[in-house]
Amino acid sequence: MKALVWDGETLRFDGERARPELPAGWARLKVRCAGICSTDEQILKGYMDFKGVPGHEFVGEVLEGPKELLGKRVACEINFACGECSACHRGMGRHCPTRTVLGILGSDGAFAEEVVAPVENLCVVPDGVSDEQAVFTEPLAAAYEILEQVHLEPGARAVVLGDGKLGQLCAQVLHSAGAVVELIGKHPDKLDHATSLGIKTTLLSDFDEIPAPLVVEATGSEAGLAMAMRICSPRGTLVLKSTVAASHELSLAPLVINEVTVVGSRCGRFAPALQALAQGRVSVEPMIHGSFPLEEGLAAFERARERGVLKVLLRP
Amino acid sequence: MKALVWDGETLRFDGERARPELPAGWARLKVRCAGICSTDEQILKGYMDFKGVPGHEFVGEVLEGPKELLGKRVACEINFACGECSACHRGMGRHCPTRTVLGILGSDGAFAEEVVAPVENLCVVPDGVSDEQAVFTEPLAAAYEILEQVHLEPGARAVVLGDGKLGQLCAQVLHSAGAVVELIGKHPDKLDHATSLGIKTTLLSDFDEIPAPLVVEATGSEAGLAMAMRICSPRGTLVLKSTVAASHELSLAPLVINEVTVVGSRCGRFAPALQALAQGRVSVEPMIHGSFPLEEGLAAFERARERGVLKVLLRP
Repeated sequence: MKALVWDGETLRFDGERARPELPAGWARLKVRCAGICSTDEQILKGYMDFKGVPGHEFVGEVLEGPKELLGKRVACEINFACGECSACHRGMGRHCPTRTVLGILGSDGAFAEEVVAPVENLCVVPDGVSDEQAVFTEPLAAAYEILEQVHLEPGARAVVLGDGKLGQLCAQVLHSAGAVVELIGKHPDKLDHATSLGIKTTLLSDFDEIPAPLVVEATGSEAGLAMAMRICSPRGTLVLKSTVAASHELSLAPLVINEVTVVGSRCGRFAPALQALAQGRVSVEPMIHGSFPLEEGLAAFERARERGVLKVLLRP
Repeated sequence: MKALVWDGETLRFDGERARPELPAGWARLKVRCAGICSTDEQILKGYMDFKGVPGHEFVGEVLEGPKELLGKRVACEINFACGECSACHRGMGRHCPTRTVLGILGSDGAFAEEVVAPVENLCVVPDGVSDEQAVFTEPLAAAYEILEQVHLEPGARAVVLGDGKLGQLCAQVLHSAGAVVELIGKHPDKLDHATSLGIKTTLLSDFDEIPAPLVVEATGSEAGLAMAMRICSPRGTLVLKSTVAASHELSLAPLVINEVTVVGSRCGRFAPALQALAQGRVSVEPMIHGSFPLEEGLAAFERARERGVLKVLLRP
């Protein structure tokens, strides 16, 4: 089958990759559409030491699996848990210590014609949700994870730092849930979509840094993290949505003095994201800035790196 | 009056310090007994750029103030708020941006014969609580602040890192509130008291680093913070009780990957601490490792710095 393969040094297109084997309890999916995520870029820089087929945002069609799912369009939760450890028994499969993660850790991902995944990870995509929308389920679920972790008071002021894909989705989720959101970014063209949805957007150069009780760090940069710590109100909540993987000079003393709560936030459940897409509570299609056949995967990554570009799709 | 004075370079005994002036709405207190805190040591290293009389843990007797308080023994909440800003109106006077802090920021402290403080900050010490016990009200309130911020599940496993004064008090507070506490420290003699109270204590060299859902960092060291991040379970809570003031190499990526909640925790309300002392829920007197007259304040600081020494008292 066709696939993009990362060998730890080079990303290349492989037209003759072996089809993945199908473990018991798993399903085989035909990939209909996949999206390039910033984490994929991180992987090409060595993140998680992953080797294999990347890609964890996709919508697929069930080729082999339970009869009731055959032919259905599905999104796929990306953490493949053991199901038997204490974390799994407490419903925390996304934190199973021996989990693999689709296209990120130990499991081949979706930049391929086919992918396999545990049946329990599949979520049927509602009919009203297009393939292109459904590709956003994974990052949108990560944005909804904030609402699973943080009590959002109606009308609460929230500042989202970062106008990338995840920042945009976080801003939309908080906005649709009733917060008064200000999205801060460096790119007027990226901010335009959020503005059109009624979200206040501010260029970083114009941002007045008035403290807010809820701050979401979605820049992934040291400067963004420093600003987030600076503008979070006393007793406020700072949600870390992006991993600043490298260690860097940092003092946590302001967190203690201001009694800030820092909430690390990663993957979320898919159901709330699919529901939001089905109900039109978020708008993702204007964030699609390119679509490439899998054979042109390298060009797709190039496009995704361009300034101002949000989501780029791959189609096997 | 007699006082210890820090001028930014030297701590010295001053036998002829002017008595503090008494603003309207404030009370004048005769200091009966004060305690040396690690924050005082930090002040002598430049913390908060404080100059004046340090000392924020004390019990006093009201010399001038409202009639109903005259002659009463009082403890004194250390954050002097403006009472008029939005933080104060929301009951967050401890985070008032223009506050002064007794013996730490802009207000002379208790290493003196007399000290003045806003009447609203005074808490009458119950009769059954000795002066020596009441000196612990401030740090004990800081330990109780954890229970104001974090929901403690009965029987929850909690690891407290640091066998200093604050670590000991945090361990006792969590233990008395029903947690299964393990206190980690480097000093067998410091751990003994906690052991005698039924708290599990472990020398750092013997600690197996099994992850816990609640971790309290009370070492104030970079190594302690790194360990706290390492041993906090996925979706766990890491309470930062001590300020590692200096910035240092640090990556917050593990917080995101494990979805850890970090709770910065500082001063607490005095009422729960005084109540716990009155009810004997915590045991503080065995932590007193020295008592000096104010004239011997420098010797008292020397004593407080000795290995294995916990609380050292000063008596004007």
